[in-house]
Amino acid sequence: CPCPLPSADTALSRLVRRLLSARRSLDLCLFSFSCPQLARAAQLLHRRGVRVRLVTDAQYMGLHGSQIGRLRHAGIQVRHDQHSGYMHHKFAIVDRRMLITGSLNWTTQAIQSNRENVLVVEDAEYVKAFQDEFERIWEEYNPANYSFF
Amino acid sequence: CPCPLPSADTALSRLVRRLLSARRSLDLCLFSFSCPQLARAAQLLHRRGVRVRLVTDAQYMGLHGSQIGRLRHAGIQVRHDQHSGYMHHKFAIVDRRMLITGSLNWTTQAIQSNRENVLVVEDAEYVKAFQDEFERIWEEYNPANYSFF
Repeated sequence: CPCPLPSADTALSRLVRRLLSARRSLDLCLFSFSCPQLARAAQLLHRRGVRVRLVTDAQYMGLHGSQIGRLRHAGIQVRHDQHSGYMHHKFAIVDRRMLITGSLNWTTQAIQSNRENVLVVEDAEYVKAFQDEFERIWEEYNPANYSFF
Repeated sequence: CPCPLPSADTALSRLVRRLLSARRSLDLCLFSFSCPQLARAAQLLHRRGVRVRLVTDAQYMGLHGSQIGRLRHAGIQVRHDQHSGYMHHKFAIVDRRMLITGSLNWTTQAIQSNRENVLVVEDAEYVKAFQDEFERIWEEYNPANYSFF
């Protein structure tokens, strides 16, 4: 495989390990997703039977290096906004109990070059606020609700 | 004044109120800062004698609408990175006890048009991690340490 999971104890490997701890669900709400290692983690979970859902930004999902097409091809459910504003969140929720959120876009450039933060939060009050936002967006971006005219 | 503080109970007004609760210090670590209302809040605090410090991204501080020049002109201490990667944080710490962080860049476009999150955290463990990161960056971006050659 051209994109092995990182083995050193880097911030990226710690993030991957948190994701791979999912047993039932992984909800992803990501402005930009071009990091191959993180996409591979999502694919691994999908193959293990974990329910992976992804919402993303329509303007960024088609950019060079985007992993969205690959994830869709693998059978992962993806929904995107249909607005001019950005779907600018960058968070993940593991098993509806662990929130991973911060400034970090899931891109190789951000991981390698930027000054970023990622918070891991298991406090139920915070997790619920983000889970509720995820469910709102998931419904709002349901293609059945699209209006083109 | 052309940019009054927002009065309605919007997310922006709640953010402004949190900032204006500062009595001793406001530490700002912001990738992009073009929202006039938030800049005005920082200026108000500075005039009240609150110690306001700001670190920002060198590539974004010169963009159209940036409030950085105005804040510097008002006497607020500003430092910026000198790297090609982005200083991509978007957080504020009020009185070293309240952390405000999330996906939101402090721009009018983000506030008006995007889907964003802002967390307010008073848990000391989280606040300390961000305060430590702020102090590291503040020292690292000290102009006395710049190397141009």
